[in-house]
Amino acid sequence: MRRSQSAAPIALLTDFGYRDHYVGSMKGVLASIAPEAILLDITHGVPPQSITAGAIALRESWRFFPRRTVFLVVVDPGVGTSRLPIAVETRAGPRFVGPDNGVLSLAVRDAGLRRAVRLESTQHRLAKPSSTFHGRDIFAPAAAFLSRGTPLRTLGSALARIKPLHLPKPSRTAGVICGEVLYIDAFGNLITNISRKDVARIDSSFPGKQVSVRIRRGAPMKILNTYGEARPGAILATFGSFELLEIAVRDASAATRLHCGVGATVVVRIARS
Amino acid sequence: MRRSQSAAPIALLTDFGYRDHYVGSMKGVLASIAPEAILLDITHGVPPQSITAGAIALRESWRFFPRRTVFLVVVDPGVGTSRLPIAVETRAGPRFVGPDNGVLSLAVRDAGLRRAVRLESTQHRLAKPSSTFHGRDIFAPAAAFLSRGTPLRTLGSALARIKPLHLPKPSRTAGVICGEVLYIDAFGNLITNISRKDVARIDSSFPGKQVSVRIRRGAPMKILNTYGEARPGAILATFGSFELLEIAVRDASAATRLHCGVGATVVVRIARS
Amino acid sequence: MRRSQSAAPIALLTDFGYRDHYVGSMKGVLASIAPEAILLDITHGVPPQSITAGAIALRESWRFFPRRTVFLVVVDPGVGTSRLPIAVETRAGPRFVGPDNGVLSLAVRDAGLRRAVRLESTQHRLAKPSSTFHGRDIFAPAAAFLSRGTPLRTLGSALARIKPLHLPKPSRTAGVICGEVLYIDAFGNLITNISRKDVARIDSSFPGKQVSVRIRRGAPMKILNTYGEARPGAILATFGSFELLEIAVRDASAATRLHCGVGATVVVRIARS
Repeated sequence: MRRSQSAAPIALLTDFGYRDHYVGSMKGVLASIAPEAILLDITHGVPPQSITAGAIALRESWRFFPRRTVFLVVVDPGVGTSRLPIAVETRAGPRFVGPDNGVLSLAVRDAGLRRAVRLESTQHRLAKPSSTFHGRDIFAPAAAFLSRGTPLRTLGSALARIKPLHLPKPSRTAGVICGEVLYIDAFGNLITNISRKDVARIDSSFPGKQVSVRIRRGAPMKILNTYGEARPGAILATFGSFELLEIAVRDASAATRLHCGVGATVVVRIARS
Repeated sequence: MRRSQSAAPIALLTDFGYRDHYVGSMKGVLASIAPEAILLDITHGVPPQSITAGAIALRESWRFFPRRTVFLVVVDPGVGTSRLPIAVETRAGPRFVGPDNGVLSLAVRDAGLRRAVRLESTQHRLAKPSSTFHGRDIFAPAAAFLSRGTPLRTLGSALARIKPLHLPKPSRTAGVICGEVLYIDAFGNLITNISRKDVARIDSSFPGKQVSVRIRRGAPMKILNTYGEARPGAILATFGSFELLEIAVRDASAATRLHCGVGATVVVRIARS
Repeated sequence: MRRSQSAAPIALLTDFGYRDHYVGSMKGVLASIAPEAILLDITHGVPPQSITAGAIALRESWRFFPRRTVFLVVVDPGVGTSRLPIAVETRAGPRFVGPDNGVLSLAVRDAGLRRAVRLESTQHRLAKPSSTFHGRDIFAPAAAFLSRGTPLRTLGSALARIKPLHLPKPSRTAGVICGEVLYIDAFGNLITNISRKDVARIDSSFPGKQVSVRIRRGAPMKILNTYGEARPGAILATFGSFELLEIAVRDASAATRLHCGVGATVVVRIARS
């Protein structure tokens, strides 16, 4: 365990894609400053400049990492503008580094904000940082120094709060929840903003599954326990790994089949029996 | 070499793609349980839910890894159904973890099955595993414990055999082999199910190359030693890194040029001279 | 720091893509020979067989890596032909391993060639190397041995020079620079072959920005300091992380918007005021 004592793991999440050297340059900086740190790629395939998708991916994954992990998160459409570069310590343990544009906010809210700073120290960034690549020049150095044990407060002055991200919330009336698709994964599964708790509120027998789900003008469906309960090719609703209601097609893409994108309406109501 | 003594490397092979956080969540679990293990990505770009493509990728790559490697393989269209989660020890050394749907079988056959177990131990998985993401909740913990030295039999009860995968075999008549395309790689090379041995059987002078190859209704080709022997843009046949006959286009994609997919017919016959 | 003393980091840059096991097989070889080495992926998404794109990605990233890094670079359309497999030591510190087809040359020129060898030693490659996958059979073993401390000269005989890559240079007449698009990144930014120095030569007041930029028949633009100075959706010119003039669209893809590819003409001239 010697290694993990000397440097905390660094987890990377960006929208840089896989075609260019951008992620590589960041890893070079990390390995130069914190040669002992393990680098763990979450993904670099966040849809370009989608703060919401990045924030959801981070919220869904951070709790599975070691407690001391430093998360380096770069989805940064406003690079070079007035948005702040920040680092955050949380009560749950993890540290988060990235732009203050909301991409960190869902995870930080879950992990519990303890202290946030703006990244100001010129000792803890590359010399002459560019105005277009803060991931390499500002965020990666900060993450590497945190991994090595540099205290957060050394990196810059305290911030009282970080910028929140407001996801759309489902509406609820008697016996009906009206939500929407929040995220589409690479399998084409449509992840909604409707939680188990939302469903339990309209159906006290839940998980008795006395509810039906409709997306767009589709046929009503029951909520299954897993993809595998549906016939191959059938449309289904289930609570997936996000713990949110998702619409899927067994062995195929629901996004393609249903021609649905982020924002498509999903309605859950007490089933007529 | 201290590090590799304390934890075996873990090689990852999935169809999760590169857009979501799914691979990241698995890596977080691996790093939490086995912080000393080196994580080696084989690929996460297996075509979604293609057990055959995953099995071939594993068969082609496992022997290049260190002897003690634990392979974490998740191509799992039946997640949450009755297919078993398993782990396997082999005579050649490597361990394999994944669903018992055939995806492990080609590699295990080559490496030699020594012992297989179903993953049952609740001590060696995440608490409250989801029904849709066994990669994170069941397979990753098992792989991490094996990497740390947990004995295979601790993970669950023995299985007599694992599910085989039956690849289509080429047919052979006097002087003619009729095979098909098995796998298409990212360069568009068409890898067939015809081996060197198959060709040697119809042409005792082989590698004298007294045979011709045709795909679909295309012109007959000789078998070259390497891509570079063809003119740029020419269609060619060669034995590639799979040790299987493949059809390629010099500096371009054979799949695009020939409009061929998995299953396309390939015929090898003794050349008229 | 013990680990980084015992094995140098290995950075990987290829055009193998993310669908197959090819990168994985190389990593297996690296981990078998140099189990202590940290493996750092730059990218495997270089456009297939594009030596120019690979050379640029390497030139832009190498200097951000630790001084002792071994770069394993495989963009190798001529695999199996007479092009040489080589390894290079540089004055700046890094070592480079790959085919002698120009892909290493831009980085080596910047880092300063100290010594080059052709990879000949049969002790430092896999037994029976294939003719189609030198990345796995020849280049990866060489990189791993260099990482472990094997001297460069052990790998083969000296080469006086390596093959250069000639990028198109911009032309300059009184007050006008005529260049072209050299590289398109995953965000759709169009990176040109026009440097800050080129612009300063026609405009002594630069960075006073008394110049205008046109791509194809588009409207003239000033040069901004960063993407964020443009309105969302606007076309802009700036010096990006490459330190080369690039054409971008704020929050969108310039390549898509302008229907531009590599080679498109870009003109910079003194602005009429």
